[in-house]
Amino acid sequence: MTEVIAALREALGDDAVRTGEAIGERHHTDWSGHAPAQPRALLLPRTTEEVAAALRICDAHRQSVVPQGGMTGLAGAAVPTAGDIVLSLERMSGVEEIDPAAATLTVLAGTPLQVAQEAAAAQGFELALDFGARGSCQIGGNIATNAGGLRVIQSGMTRDLLLGLEVVLADGTILSSLNKMVKNNTGYDLKQLFVGSEGTLGVITRAVLRLSPPRPQRHTALCALADFDGALALLGHMRRRLGSDVGAFELMWPDFFDLCVSLTRSKTSPFAAAHPMYVLVEMASIGGDDDAGRFAAVLGDALEDGIVTDAVIAQSASDAAALWEIRECTAEFPVALDPINLDISLPIGRIGAFVDECRAAFAAAWPVHRAFFFGHIGDSNLHVTVDGRTSPGATHAGVDDIAYALVRQYGGSVSAEHGIGVLKRPYLSYSRMPAELATMRRIKQALDPNGILNPGKVL
Amino acid sequence: MTEVIAALREALGDDAVRTGEAIGERHHTDWSGHAPAQPRALLLPRTTEEVAAALRICDAHRQSVVPQGGMTGLAGAAVPTAGDIVLSLERMSGVEEIDPAAATLTVLAGTPLQVAQEAAAAQGFELALDFGARGSCQIGGNIATNAGGLRVIQSGMTRDLLLGLEVVLADGTILSSLNKMVKNNTGYDLKQLFVGSEGTLGVITRAVLRLSPPRPQRHTALCALADFDGALALLGHMRRRLGSDVGAFELMWPDFFDLCVSLTRSKTSPFAAAHPMYVLVEMASIGGDDDAGRFAAVLGDALEDGIVTDAVIAQSASDAAALWEIRECTAEFPVALDPINLDISLPIGRIGAFVDECRAAFAAAWPVHRAFFFGHIGDSNLHVTVDGRTSPGATHAGVDDIAYALVRQYGGSVSAEHGIGVLKRPYLSYSRMPAELATMRRIKQALDPNGILNPGKVL
Repeated sequence: MTEVIAALREALGDDAVRTGEAIGERHHTDWSGHAPAQPRALLLPRTTEEVAAALRICDAHRQSVVPQGGMTGLAGAAVPTAGDIVLSLERMSGVEEIDPAAATLTVLAGTPLQVAQEAAAAQGFELALDFGARGSCQIGGNIATNAGGLRVIQSGMTRDLLLGLEVVLADGTILSSLNKMVKNNTGYDLKQLFVGSEGTLGVITRAVLRLSPPRPQRHTALCALADFDGALALLGHMRRRLGSDVGAFELMWPDFFDLCVSLTRSKTSPFAAAHPMYVLVEMASIGGDDDAGRFAAVLGDALEDGIVTDAVIAQSASDAAALWEIRECTAEFPVALDPINLDISLPIGRIGAFVDECRAAFAAAWPVHRAFFFGHIGDSNLHVTVDGRTSPGATHAGVDDIAYALVRQYGGSVSAEHGIGVLKRPYLSYSRMPAELATMRRIKQALDPNGILNPGKVL
Repeated sequence: MTEVIAALREALGDDAVRTGEAIGERHHTDWSGHAPAQPRALLLPRTTEEVAAALRICDAHRQSVVPQGGMTGLAGAAVPTAGDIVLSLERMSGVEEIDPAAATLTVLAGTPLQVAQEAAAAQGFELALDFGARGSCQIGGNIATNAGGLRVIQSGMTRDLLLGLEVVLADGTILSSLNKMVKNNTGYDLKQLFVGSEGTLGVITRAVLRLSPPRPQRHTALCALADFDGALALLGHMRRRLGSDVGAFELMWPDFFDLCVSLTRSKTSPFAAAHPMYVLVEMASIGGDDDAGRFAAVLGDALEDGIVTDAVIAQSASDAAALWEIRECTAEFPVALDPINLDISLPIGRIGAFVDECRAAFAAAWPVHRAFFFGHIGDSNLHVTVDGRTSPGATHAGVDDIAYALVRQYGGSVSAEHGIGVLKRPYLSYSRMPAELATMRRIKQALDPNGILNPGKVL
């Protein structure tokens, strides 16, 4: 047993320091599919003070530390190498307080998102952060990756919900800024640095999140459009008429739409004819007297103005579920395809041209291929899936190279919401300039001079 | 002429480097009333490259630089000392682009807020940042101070509207991150550091701001309440029923309300009786079919549930203006009083108890005194005004000492929206812990190792 492990056992107790086979396989890799590795040790601290003690020891020994949450990340930021010690927040779990007057929730970093959501709901509030991994992912990881998800168009990214943060720096300094106030201009807003830093600047231990009134009323429609410009026009129209009640705007190019329809139970399009573009729209409101009428009027005007070619408005929850089944066919992708997935952002107005050019570039590289385009356009977020099974020659690296080169050219982002981790590190410079990367390194050097926190990730 | 001035003239041209009497008095101090000083020189760069050249020269000469915007700050952050060179952004003015698809506005830092607001309005959008100084303040200063203002309850602080930023570091490095995308998780979000840094970390030269659909429909009411808990109940009730359409929630304690009524033209309270608490509420919406009915129903239910004791709903724009005249009597304070003003934040649920305790502490210190309490409670923001004229012995320092000691005890913020500057520097440690202050210094050291940017401010 080496000196650092001995010191950690001394500080945290044997039960909180595991090695070898005692480290569960779930700590070897995350949902990114990055190559697993058994780390040198697993730390399971119970308190912020234990996190601080562990980091102080590791910093003194120049021992690299990989913070881990729910291991649902898609960029490999929580995957260790054999020489790393991993620090899991799983024992620091629980909602500590809901303050109804301030509309805030104070939570330990290892709390699963769904647990926090349910605690908020029990008090008549909504935690407006949601995505598929809700049952497994943890709040600390959500903050460390600035998670996006299903509610971004209405409520923003994780950053927008964060009011206060407790974080431990590499040298064991505890920064406790559990602020509940909307307005607080007292010096630098340090918490912002840790949002999206993917464990490279500090270990998040606690957070204060903003709650909102629930928006239980949902009205859903599927619209057919003439082209991408029609989608932009509809987005603008809905925003002017519904404001922040626009709850979803999911654009689907025909290749994606047709595939998805074929994967639904009914295998039937809601439209009699084929269309050049489809969008699933939703109004999510706190509930007015005639929300259904308001939604129908907005879509009716869009039809009358020629913005929308055709529309199907869900008349019931099961209607709405049937429309969402099309968009959510992506859950079937791992079975139906060998999916090579991209998560990128582009200035909204340029997304249509980007898709055309990207499609042409794929065709030039792989004469036989299948690619599917869809996205949360209101968030500037585009997803692209290439089917490796039916696209001879197409590899993840090949798809990345082509698409990210175009992203760079279009002034886009190589990571909309998944982060950089290890998988996108080679492409970070496509979206950030040398001066930005150099400044990030200055910040890293200032907060973690020995470079022990998640080395090899992001930068 | 010293070497640094000569080098600046060489780089920027004589016209952009002024000294002595050629420096207008407006560059000597800001709206804080801090003691004016004639700086060593005034720089008037025209481009980001000129800002970079100027900072490179100043950094090489260890010459301190004070960035200046519209000089409307209330904490003295832009006030020079005699040894400083001031750098005004006033020549870098103008809206460069409005992107309707992305709903963004790209603007030079020296642009007055009102110019940006009008440019957005001309394209059918709203820039949801507003306050009294709109005609004089500049976008760069708004960002550097994370300005708040009249729209915070609905649209957040300046930080929440900021998508992209161009900033020049002390060594002349240009960080250009003119991002327009909602989702962009590519490394550290560096722009966040400069928001609220009050010119101590970099000079802001350009920004991309988020636009929103206009909310032209306003419905206004004045409510009478039994106590502070009633105000909390009404705020929760309105948020549950109106969601993000709650456009104002201005709480007024009776001392403030009575004074303000006496300062209106009519000198008459809209209520027949006196009440323990008043709140001016507003719904600001994009406009539905029956917004007036919706607003009346929400207030009617609050009356019926006993949350509200009495209410006056404005039936016209002039009714609404008359109600706002009461709240906006603060504009008369400089004439009617010798106002000693505080701008603080507290966790919303504790504001009532704070006011009671603060009032008692003032009474203990100054048996004869007049203090007035009011605030944007939905933003956690409380304002306190003590009248120096009728409060023998009360000084600004005395009021600060008493109130800030209580703010510290209540876990509040000594600056809600005005920033720290020089005036609140002695009290920064009341709201931020030693570890936070030490980490701020680490960041300052990393980005401005020679300490040339706005020395003596904030930290």
